[in-house]
Amino acid sequence: MGKGEDVNVRDHTEEDMGKEDTGECIFCEIIGRTKPADIIYEDDRVVAFKDKRPRAPVHVLVIPRKHIPTLFDLTDEDENLIGHIHLVAARLARQLGAVDGFRVVVNCGARAGQTVYHLHFHILAGRPLGWPPG
Amino acid sequence: MGKGEDVNVRDHTEEDMGKEDTGECIFCEIIGRTKPADIIYEDDRVVAFKDKRPRAPVHVLVIPRKHIPTLFDLTDEDENLIGHIHLVAARLARQLGAVDGFRVVVNCGARAGQTVYHLHFHILAGRPLGWPPG
Repeated sequence: MGKGEDVNVRDHTEEDMGKEDTGECIFCEIIGRTKPADIIYEDDRVVAFKDKRPRAPVHVLVIPRKHIPTLFDLTDEDENLIGHIHLVAARLARQLGAVDGFRVVVNCGARAGQTVYHLHFHILAGRPLGWPPG
Repeated sequence: MGKGEDVNVRDHTEEDMGKEDTGECIFCEIIGRTKPADIIYEDDRVVAFKDKRPRAPVHVLVIPRKHIPTLFDLTDEDENLIGHIHLVAARLARQLGAVDGFRVVVNCGARAGQTVYHLHFHILAGRPLGWPPG
């Protein structure tokens, strides 16, 4: 795992990190309800939950149920899934009061700050968001 | 138009901004080749070009040919398109040397920094990317 800045991992122990390296995935565990998370939405394709270390008043992660490690691992058959995630993101943003806008961020790879290798889309809102985005 | 931090608009004049407000779109003009841009990829669904004010060694915008103002305007029929944009983003990132990773950022609405109201996905890479992302 990299030394990225992704927010969820800092709450996890070295043991957790080891689990990821051996093929177990904390986000798959959240999907399977064997690891707690503040889940705010789910359907047959995606799960959304609050980021454990929010960096904005609204900070939610939307993840596919399918274990896709990174954007580099996408295949053509995932096109619909990724689009669906964005439709869910927009709907959740509205429901959470972010009617004036939100930002979607995906980190791909350690250098971009990805630390959990299960594709996840950050939704941030509720405060002005500066530029550049990191 | 908002006072967002999106990078492309700062190069444009008040006249350009007025054009957007009357329904013309600078990104549609780039797609139609009536406005210059450093286009690096295009296919039947998307166009990718270098950001005019890059904030990282690699800073590319991937946009749909279809004029969709914001993520709030997505419909179910756009699912494939949005997924395709991510597949293109990953392929371009690799081709541009960002094999160790990249970040994808979408601003939706003025408060998130969106200034051009034609959906666009920022791809940033080539330097460490901090957290939070703006």
